[in-house]
Amino acid sequence: MEDNHHFNAGTGSNLTVAGTVECDASIMNSAEDFGAIGATSGIKNPIKAAYRILLGSQETDPHGRIPPMLVSGNTPSDLAVDPSEMITSKARSEWERWKTVIQTEQQPYGVTNDNIVQDTVGAILCTVDGEVAAGVSSGGILLKPTGRIGEAACFGAGCWASGARDSLNAVACSISGAGEMIMRAFLAKELAESVRRPDCDAHEEIERTLNKFIDMCARRGSDHANAGVILIVAEHHEDGVVRPRLWCGFTTQSFAVAYATSMDSPPKAVILRRPNRESDKSGLYITSLPLS
Amino acid sequence: MEDNHHFNAGTGSNLTVAGTVECDASIMNSAEDFGAIGATSGIKNPIKAAYRILLGSQETDPHGRIPPMLVSGNTPSDLAVDPSEMITSKARSEWERWKTVIQTEQQPYGVTNDNIVQDTVGAILCTVDGEVAAGVSSGGILLKPTGRIGEAACFGAGCWASGARDSLNAVACSISGAGEMIMRAFLAKELAESVRRPDCDAHEEIERTLNKFIDMCARRGSDHANAGVILIVAEHHEDGVVRPRLWCGFTTQSFAVAYATSMDSPPKAVILRRPNRESDKSGLYITSLPLS
Repeated sequence: MEDNHHFNAGTGSNLTVAGTVECDASIMNSAEDFGAIGATSGIKNPIKAAYRILLGSQETDPHGRIPPMLVSGNTPSDLAVDPSEMITSKARSEWERWKTVIQTEQQPYGVTNDNIVQDTVGAILCTVDGEVAAGVSSGGILLKPTGRIGEAACFGAGCWASGARDSLNAVACSISGAGEMIMRAFLAKELAESVRRPDCDAHEEIERTLNKFIDMCARRGSDHANAGVILIVAEHHEDGVVRPRLWCGFTTQSFAVAYATSMDSPPKAVILRRPNRESDKSGLYITSLPLS
Repeated sequence: MEDNHHFNAGTGSNLTVAGTVECDASIMNSAEDFGAIGATSGIKNPIKAAYRILLGSQETDPHGRIPPMLVSGNTPSDLAVDPSEMITSKARSEWERWKTVIQTEQQPYGVTNDNIVQDTVGAILCTVDGEVAAGVSSGGILLKPTGRIGEAACFGAGCWASGARDSLNAVACSISGAGEMIMRAFLAKELAESVRRPDCDAHEEIERTLNKFIDMCARRGSDHANAGVILIVAEHHEDGVVRPRLWCGFTTQSFAVAYATSMDSPPKAVILRRPNRESDKSGLYITSLPLS
């Protein structure tokens, strides 16, 4: 997805105020190993760099240094490309348009929230044995300051994975939306932990956690409580079989999700749309998609 | 303290594997506003840069952009100095000595944990009205990879402040130690939240939270569960007076702390030492210092 120009991740990312691409990405596994890369320029696939940090964090240093979880900036590596190759003409024209709006203090004309590309990408997986992993990759918000590190690189914020332990379910989730608010809420960790009890009602737990997030945003004066979540809960049934369940929750008008299983083909892609209900003040939509 | 060559923060910081200074710092206030700077080179006082980010986060952007909480790398600003000015001869000689140890795969000779400088600095305050703030500044671990961002820049990890709300106490804390482990534990947030209930036993809560941290480190195969904490709890008494209490907790052999009040002079400085008790397996020492 980082190579697809339509997404705000890798090539095609939103540009910073300086007109550059700076990406964040992170990845986590069942053992809660974690690797993240923040505000990096010229790495074609930031998630691969994040994965390399995760692998490094599994190694023991003979001199007692603890390996990093989060690395920022340019990491010289075989993953590097010319940073300008990651700038698409669409990203450049959006940058020019908004730069003008801001410099001339115009009221944005003909631009609604729906026109603003915020398509950070996330991926989660669950094996038949109940192993889980989660990742997220983002180009961040358009015209962000250079060096800004967002939720996609922060532990507990943009993605989370925890394996089954004691009586707890395995769970993986990935989130995008209002980055700094998601960081404040430790939203990925909070969501994942809320659904680990095997007897819990996942729908209720996700609703409670996202409503808490919306309340926190309101309390801090932000009316952009944007968040979109994909979440897998791997329920261990008594017959020894793992039954993963895929949940989606979002506060935006629409949310795109694609999924596949090894038992079922071909992959499915849907754009979920929130019903317009005036009584639904929270503007929250939660649903579970059948995986088999 | 960032200007004092004896501390691992600002000038005098540990050097990265590339022989450069890269600093992390963060600051937080009663309203839970937060600003952080990560892996920055050539900013003489990283805490001032973090404070600027905090101030920026309080502003509302007319175009809906959420201001950053964490900014990495070189921020061109009036705070900048020639990065080489921040390298001290002591830091350079430690770097050379350990670089040789690592390159030649020597066993470190004549070096014990006590010789390793880990003196990250933290500061917390509480006003007579019960307003609190917390900050932390660190040069990170010696020979860290360039670009590594540690606990001192991560929300929830290196420092925390929360004002009195409903029936909860105000609290501020600042932490140093094994950075990535502190990030994993969200240790500043966990510690601060553990002591906010006015009827809680702060000693027990700090002990429980630090023991949970030590257990997590052990579970992840790390025997370096280093953490040192300063923590203020502002207890609101029935007579309307705020009585701040200063707590220290640490897993290391010693811990240096200095404190002052507007009612009492002069400032006091102490080096706390953990009693050597064989039965004390956790290697944890917690004490409260009288502020008046």
